[in-house]
Amino acid sequence: MRAVDIIAHKRDGGILSREEIAWLINGHVAGEIPDYQMAAWAMAVFFNGMNAEETAALTEVMLRSGAAMDLSGIPGPFVDKHSTGGVGDKTSLIIAPIIASLGIKDPMMSGRALGHTGGTLDKLDAIPGYRTNLSAREFRRILAKDGFAMTGQTRDIAPADRLLYALRDVTATVESIPLITASILSKKAAEGAEALVMDVKYGSGAFMKRKSDAEALARSLVHTGVLMGKRIVALLTDMDEPLGNMVGNFLEVEESFVCLEGGGPGDLMEVSLELAARMSALGGKAETIDEGRALCEKALAGGKPRQLFLDNIESQGGDVRKFLSMIGKYRSEYSAEIRAARSGFIARIDALKTGRAGVQLGVGRNRAEDPVSPVAGVQFHKKSGGAVKAGDLVMTVYAKDEPALGAALPQLEEAVEYGDEAPDARKLIWQ
Amino acid sequence: MRAVDIIAHKRDGGILSREEIAWLINGHVAGEIPDYQMAAWAMAVFFNGMNAEETAALTEVMLRSGAAMDLSGIPGPFVDKHSTGGVGDKTSLIIAPIIASLGIKDPMMSGRALGHTGGTLDKLDAIPGYRTNLSAREFRRILAKDGFAMTGQTRDIAPADRLLYALRDVTATVESIPLITASILSKKAAEGAEALVMDVKYGSGAFMKRKSDAEALARSLVHTGVLMGKRIVALLTDMDEPLGNMVGNFLEVEESFVCLEGGGPGDLMEVSLELAARMSALGGKAETIDEGRALCEKALAGGKPRQLFLDNIESQGGDVRKFLSMIGKYRSEYSAEIRAARSGFIARIDALKTGRAGVQLGVGRNRAEDPVSPVAGVQFHKKSGGAVKAGDLVMTVYAKDEPALGAALPQLEEAVEYGDEAPDARKLIWQ
Repeated sequence: MRAVDIIAHKRDGGILSREEIAWLINGHVAGEIPDYQMAAWAMAVFFNGMNAEETAALTEVMLRSGAAMDLSGIPGPFVDKHSTGGVGDKTSLIIAPIIASLGIKDPMMSGRALGHTGGTLDKLDAIPGYRTNLSAREFRRILAKDGFAMTGQTRDIAPADRLLYALRDVTATVESIPLITASILSKKAAEGAEALVMDVKYGSGAFMKRKSDAEALARSLVHTGVLMGKRIVALLTDMDEPLGNMVGNFLEVEESFVCLEGGGPGDLMEVSLELAARMSALGGKAETIDEGRALCEKALAGGKPRQLFLDNIESQGGDVRKFLSMIGKYRSEYSAEIRAARSGFIARIDALKTGRAGVQLGVGRNRAEDPVSPVAGVQFHKKSGGAVKAGDLVMTVYAKDEPALGAALPQLEEAVEYGDEAPDARKLIWQ
Repeated sequence: MRAVDIIAHKRDGGILSREEIAWLINGHVAGEIPDYQMAAWAMAVFFNGMNAEETAALTEVMLRSGAAMDLSGIPGPFVDKHSTGGVGDKTSLIIAPIIASLGIKDPMMSGRALGHTGGTLDKLDAIPGYRTNLSAREFRRILAKDGFAMTGQTRDIAPADRLLYALRDVTATVESIPLITASILSKKAAEGAEALVMDVKYGSGAFMKRKSDAEALARSLVHTGVLMGKRIVALLTDMDEPLGNMVGNFLEVEESFVCLEGGGPGDLMEVSLELAARMSALGGKAETIDEGRALCEKALAGGKPRQLFLDNIESQGGDVRKFLSMIGKYRSEYSAEIRAARSGFIARIDALKTGRAGVQLGVGRNRAEDPVSPVAGVQFHKKSGGAVKAGDLVMTVYAKDEPALGAALPQLEEAVEYGDEAPDARKLIWQ
């Protein structure tokens, strides 16, 4: 085989064989196929796509390029959820203890914040002592004990994806549905989950800005997952406005805990319960989604998920007493308020603008090597649909330092859209 | 500027500014922009194209990345012809002395054989002593004295194109009309020609297999050339069958000389005179194409082009007496005949199959570093339209060695198509 022929085949709209894909990807990992040929191939894939069989072959080759978590000996079922990323999206932290309380195991490998979207690992790092760099042995032990464990992807997970993703990032080939699909599923498959719920976000703060793109990605994830032998479903959920009332690292852990105590905001609870219900059904704990939702609500009311959340903090090295003492108090000293510019209703709080302001505040980062702040963030006192009088408190803003606060405030003010009448209720779940 | 933004802009169908193109190409030459970003960009250009202004900007940036021939002090006009390459295409060697005899200067920088297409430099190298590596000083002196000079492109001509072409060759991005246009014109502009005739070949043995592609390339060359301030025309000519009766390095030099002595085959003379007529008109020696053709025919009849051809051999270090003694005699000892498989008419001799067989015989090469044979080649005794009886001599075949002969013969037999009736006359010039 010659790489140039495989590139030309895809460029001309051809369908690549499993052998061609394996030869290309394995050759890249081995350093035998140079980056410039992979870049041209990725751009040809951007334009001509890949069918479900090609995407599944790519996913499997990338999965097999590295290690996979060995969960043998631990009783299942193993079910995980993956979100395509958003602003204020902390559903993972709420869902894992809920479904663990139902007897489902959730082996979670998560990522860090990049660009305007948050990262589960950065949130967990805001808990004093909490470790997100578990060894495989620790991961297995905690998963078996608490029903879920949360760690970062190790360097031996899907190295072919890591290499290709770094190249796509600098060659404008990130935005390709089959390449996104293979990148997500190769990493998720390495965790050992048998069943997966995909939360495909769309809206201004999502990777997919258009519904049609989000639908295409959802379809691709499901088709490819099925071909790989997974039980898999995908939901489309709103990311036009941040999810919940908190954006920030510790702020989002705190809000997750508040949800488990029964005091969470409506939008966040609705999406979390919908996802948890799907996971319950996929894990064989419920016959229907409605039954799953009822099970999850009942579990929440019983208090076990709250206890599992605290148990997990302790299992992963965190200081539970200190964590509890920080609730409602662990805030940056660099803070400011944003008040309603006029009377009427909040029509929308733009997720992308909030997320970008969040990067400036210190919640997220633009480059993988930049640090983040545990205490930076935004608390919303009003969201879309809320009635306001001019001067009412809309947000409290926390920054890593004074200049960051000054830089982010105008953007956050701009993120708030007002209207004369109450907007239509925000549709959170689009199936 | 960031390369990834320029790639994304082109990927999304945008039009690049002159500044963006210059920044990208100059950055690549400086080693600041890596091959993988250029490869992704080239693939995006393959899919989304470039308009005439972008193509002209790319051409000029590539031209200015290197040296250009300084023809100041030599009286013009300077007119050159460029062919997109074919099998048996030796028109350059016939045209240059004809138009030089009319007082036009033809500064020729040529290439070598690659794949199934021949190369002028390899043909000239078959003349004993002939030098194709002239210094700029020698090139100027010979051009001024004989009216034409023939040399290879030096490494300081358009280095940006050399780098990009090498990358395109291994990333399946050769077949892009704007990239082909810029590659051709950046090198042609460096020669110093004020006016250019583009011979865009199409047919099985051409780079462009389809008429619509050849037309698109012809249009792109003319539009871009005009934007660069050149007088430029393009012709579409046939490359479905080899041009003339000889394919090979010395064989084609010999056939060119025979043309200048008045004994050339009809198809080769028709195309050569048409191109020469255009060059005469562009060089201001004729008001119309017909007048130009008449001038060229008159010049040929007068014998001056033949003498200029021999003068040039001497000027470039060749041995004229030895050359003349080789005419009709300098042939490989490894030869064979191909005879008509049946009675009827030759319907077509396929140019691509002939060219590919030629590579095996030793006429051309598949890799730039492979040697070629001066004496390998094919002489056609019949071409399309010729009546044959079974057993009539159709070709004499000359190979670099015995195994090459054995390998090429079946392909050459397969290149001949027979019919029961005389085929329609081959249309050579499509405008």
